Amino acid sequence: MSHVTHLECSKCGKHYNSEEVHQLCECGGPLLVRYDLEQVKKNFHKEDLKGREPSLWRYRELLPLKDKNNQVSLGEGMTPIIKMDVAGPAIGLKNLYLKDEGVIPSGTFKSRGAAVGVSRAKELGIKTLAMPTNGNAGAAWATYCARAGIKCVIVMPQDAPEITRNECAITGADLYLVDGLISDAGKIVGRAVQKYGWFDASTLKEPYRIEGKKTMGLEIAEQFNWEVPDVILYPTGGGVGIIGIYKALQELRSIGWIGEKMPRLVAVQAEGCAPIVKAWNGRKTESEFWQNAYTCAFGINVPKALGDFLVLEAIYKTDGCAVAVSDEEILKAQAVLAAKEGAFVCPEGASLYSAARKLREQGWLKEDETVLLLNTGSGLKYPETVKVEVPLLQPDDDIPEV
Amino acid sequence: MSHVTHLECSKCGKHYNSEEVHQLCECGGPLLVRYDLEQVKKNFHKEDLKGREPSLWRYRELLPLKDKNNQVSLGEGMTPIIKMDVAGPAIGLKNLYLKDEGVIPSGTFKSRGAAVGVSRAKELGIKTLAMPTNGNAGAAWATYCARAGIKCVIVMPQDAPEITRNECAITGADLYLVDGLISDAGKIVGRAVQKYGWFDASTLKEPYRIEGKKTMGLEIAEQFNWEVPDVILYPTGGGVGIIGIYKALQELRSIGWIGEKMPRLVAVQAEGCAPIVKAWNGRKTESEFWQNAYTCAFGINVPKALGDFLVLEAIYKTDGCAVAVSDEEILKAQAVLAAKEGAFVCPEGASLYSAARKLREQGWLKEDETVLLLNTGSGLKYPETVKVEVPLLQPDDDIPEV
Repeated sequence: MSHVTHLECSKCGKHYNSEEVHQLCECGGPLLVRYDLEQVKKNFHKEDLKGREPSLWRYRELLPLKDKNNQVSLGEGMTPIIKMDVAGPAIGLKNLYLKDEGVIPSGTFKSRGAAVGVSRAKELGIKTLAMPTNGNAGAAWATYCARAGIKCVIVMPQDAPEITRNECAITGADLYLVDGLISDAGKIVGRAVQKYGWFDASTLKEPYRIEGKKTMGLEIAEQFNWEVPDVILYPTGGGVGIIGIYKALQELRSIGWIGEKMPRLVAVQAEGCAPIVKAWNGRKTESEFWQNAYTCAFGINVPKALGDFLVLEAIYKTDGCAVAVSDEEILKAQAVLAAKEGAFVCPEGASLYSAARKLREQGWLKEDETVLLLNTGSGLKYPETVKVEVPLLQPDDDIPEV
Repeated sequence: MSHVTHLECSKCGKHYNSEEVHQLCECGGPLLVRYDLEQVKKNFHKEDLKGREPSLWRYRELLPLKDKNNQVSLGEGMTPIIKMDVAGPAIGLKNLYLKDEGVIPSGTFKSRGAAVGVSRAKELGIKTLAMPTNGNAGAAWATYCARAGIKCVIVMPQDAPEITRNECAITGADLYLVDGLISDAGKIVGRAVQKYGWFDASTLKEPYRIEGKKTMGLEIAEQFNWEVPDVILYPTGGGVGIIGIYKALQELRSIGWIGEKMPRLVAVQAEGCAPIVKAWNGRKTESEFWQNAYTCAFGINVPKALGDFLVLEAIYKTDGCAVAVSDEEILKAQAVLAAKEGAFVCPEGASLYSAARKLREQGWLKEDETVLLLNTGSGLKYPETVKVEVPLLQPDDDIPEV
């Protein structure tokens, strides 16, 4: 079923056997999954998709799973794309779209990486895995591990969204909080996997999560009828989503499903944690550790991403850019999208709307361009971002006139 | 586009013009939408579905909207059905499935009724609507009203899930809490719509919500490849879902898409609020108001449903039954489904698993029967149902051996 040929280091190019368990390359670079795209081109056609289930597994020829029996699925993928006919024109964009990754099991795009990553972990016989997380990834991996029967150890900052603790706890993961950032959680996990021989499922330290995230790019192309949008904005923490989308579009180009045109990819970060933006402003190819990182958009509170060089490459190669927005702008944008479009997005997703407004003001985005905001999760997971004061009535009270 | 012929009273059979705004029949009965099913049979074929979007609008020939421009959509519908290969056999059921309505905008099945109800309200020119709710329906209607530009007034018990306040507030609805039950909220709304001339969107007081809920039945039939399951269990508060599923299956039978066989429909309630179960036990055709209603499964805390007689009819006609389970059993079932299947369901959905266990023990369900649990929403909306105690580490601490 799979057309995988090997794993390839994204830094030094070294090849690894995809049927063995690998983490990083010996040079420290993340490994990417490579396919025999000539074979895929021969055996996989757009029309094949027509009768298939609306989940990310519809693209199985471009996914690494060999045996369908190892598929660990909760029906994830084919999230909706909605047009924003009010919020778009309000910032001078006639064709503004939102892909809503809130409409997926566990409520965030993290389920994609978890579905494919856990399926492949099951296929390779992994019994226990561990990972640091800003909350949502850990919740997703805990969920899919429960379904797969794999033991899961999660370490997250104590400030991570509280509901993600519930998800880890109820699905039976071993959960630890850390008085620190995701980078501190990462070090704790690093020591533990050394000590106990667990599989390290940290961002980009295993090759399959990115294959799950990649399906966002495949879906975008299919949902836009194989004409990619002009611009895609993406909230960038670890950056696996933007790397995955770029990889997906390259693969689709190789098999001839889309033309040469690539969307300009935009990494959006918070002003309180903007290492990629800083690197891009300085035309660097890697980022530096961001001191005292803080933002309400917790998923993008990542001071230094292992895949920063891949994110920057995707931006440079597509003539994209990187933009930072303030937490105040983020919360304002969240309210605008909810009230004008009925889209209750997470703060990470809301940051994209502020960024789009800025880029339009600067003329970097044109009025007629097709612009896609990739909302990574549901606002339901962030109750603290909404201020609510509600009048309490007694049963005999009346509603005052509006 | 629409094949609607008229509205028909579910009690006295009186007809109403579907192009006018109507609430209840003059006899007090809820109005149902009727279609020219002969025309639908001629013009709509299973193959038509193949290329269509995975949303509830794929069944537009069986929906009441006339003009696609009035469609208010966030991409709702075609929620996944997952097989429970661990939790099923654990209670003696080899073919246990869960349809997960958590994977939908706003995280509950209420978005279906809201999408179709608000679309039709927009088509009929309604400017302000009001409704009582146990939380999730209000959140969904507020969300879709925001997208439609319709003013929305919501009244909910102060004990309703807190996140639903956020959803109403951020989407710009006028929200009121009541120190009482949904029945008290209903009376407040009743007085307000009289006084201010608003449209009353209470359960079954307008005809279109049920058409949205109906799409669950259409999807189940399609997802099971037009062979309906033997049994469907449904958490029953207002009961619109079970009424809608039954209506959908009758319509599919009329157009020849499914055979004569109907699934046995099972209404599941909480022991603390079980008016339908009590009525069914006494072979009544209507229920009585349940005093001092209480359950943690808040969505089914409905002491007397307007459509109770329709729910009971659906149960009797399909040789179904009605079962009550305790809150303790519900919370235990929630944990089992999460840990064994990775399905983090709401308490309402979890009640179904307890009910299935009971019915299997009684022999009412057979080992080989295909049984579908209709989980109405995501566990993410009920953080208080999960008890979490998590160790806090300092950055230099190590994870103890598991």
